[in-house]
Amino acid sequence: MGDISLIAFDADDTLWECQSYFEKVEEEYCRLLAPYAPADKVSEALFATETANMPLFGYGCKAFMLSLLENAARVSGEQLTADEVTKIIRLGKGLLQLPAQPIDGVEETLKTLHDAGKYHLVVFTKGELLDQESKFKRSGLHAYFDDFVVVSDKTESSYHRLCRQFGIKVGQLLMVGNSFRSDIEPVLKLGGWAAHIPFRTVWQHEVVEEYDHPHLMRLDDFSQLKNLL
Amino acid sequence: MGDISLIAFDADDTLWECQSYFEKVEEEYCRLLAPYAPADKVSEALFATETANMPLFGYGCKAFMLSLLENAARVSGEQLTADEVTKIIRLGKGLLQLPAQPIDGVEETLKTLHDAGKYHLVVFTKGELLDQESKFKRSGLHAYFDDFVVVSDKTESSYHRLCRQFGIKVGQLLMVGNSFRSDIEPVLKLGGWAAHIPFRTVWQHEVVEEYDHPHLMRLDDFSQLKNLL
Repeated sequence: MGDISLIAFDADDTLWECQSYFEKVEEEYCRLLAPYAPADKVSEALFATETANMPLFGYGCKAFMLSLLENAARVSGEQLTADEVTKIIRLGKGLLQLPAQPIDGVEETLKTLHDAGKYHLVVFTKGELLDQESKFKRSGLHAYFDDFVVVSDKTESSYHRLCRQFGIKVGQLLMVGNSFRSDIEPVLKLGGWAAHIPFRTVWQHEVVEEYDHPHLMRLDDFSQLKNLL
Repeated sequence: MGDISLIAFDADDTLWECQSYFEKVEEEYCRLLAPYAPADKVSEALFATETANMPLFGYGCKAFMLSLLENAARVSGEQLTADEVTKIIRLGKGLLQLPAQPIDGVEETLKTLHDAGKYHLVVFTKGELLDQESKFKRSGLHAYFDDFVVVSDKTESSYHRLCRQFGIKVGQLLMVGNSFRSDIEPVLKLGGWAAHIPFRTVWQHEVVEEYDHPHLMRLDDFSQLKNLL
């Protein structure tokens, strides 16, 4: 690990809480559609709609809002009302304004890593550009980072591109994140380093089988990153 | 102009046609909502809805789809049906799959500039990440470019960042695009160079007063860029 020069951080559910807000919106959505179908059927259909729309819409809040609307029209048996459309859009707009308050331990750990001056620190997140930028601004964490990169998906090739952009070899990269699928696996496959900090909830789309690896550190919380120094 | 080392190209309505597809969708949308309000009222309300949503949704196709839906619920006097919701989403999905066929003269001009090997060539576009990436892939133009950059908005600071990313001074940048507001004005203000190639239609949000400037070239079509060499 002595070669590490760039530490890249996932954002949602690594720096600030996110998934729980989506889950609360989905609960309210299911309540709204309760006259048409039971919550488990609505959620199941929503997951199928999101999955089908993924190649076209990608990840993020506006993609989610559109899938909520498409799915609502379908599960309502074409009975959805204009008032319900308006309410669903309002729920989604709330997600675009979630607090992005740093998770406990994040800010002081970033400050320590930043002040040590040994690493370039960047945010590396997937999703929608403007929404991710807005959350980053609201988080108040920008002072600790050298850069902020948003990609449409975190694949091996996007990690390759990240390394190229910062002029490093993949063995000099440490990726920190909560999603084994997006933050950990592609980096390990390329020969980089990864620190997995699971969050208490994980999006169903991100669930994947986990495993041990000599380049993988498992941390209980963000502040354990200080042990790197 | 002898110092130019980076040529950045806008994408929508510079490399491929885009706005006309949005206009066609808006026409179909107005036809769909004709039972509720005349087309000019629907369009006027849509523009107001889009403008109000801009800070939260940003630019792009999913933003447009959500504004179409929100506005439809409103102008229908809360009479919008689920079937109409489904049809509006279908119209929007069509926009996410527009052909992105290069405009006449674009491909051979890019080939000439690329083969000359005198400049770095990048796409510099605003909007939604995945949608812009997908259009770029469909366009078949990737072989001519060194990089592809999507930003949430084209402000002076995003042009600053572009120059920093490529390690150049702003006087070494030539920006090529159809929107005076997004592609030309911020670059001229920073001291860079700009080539304006108006397209036959421009989005109402992009309309701004135009003017002459010693660093501004006005071109009738894309192939006149070859005269740079």
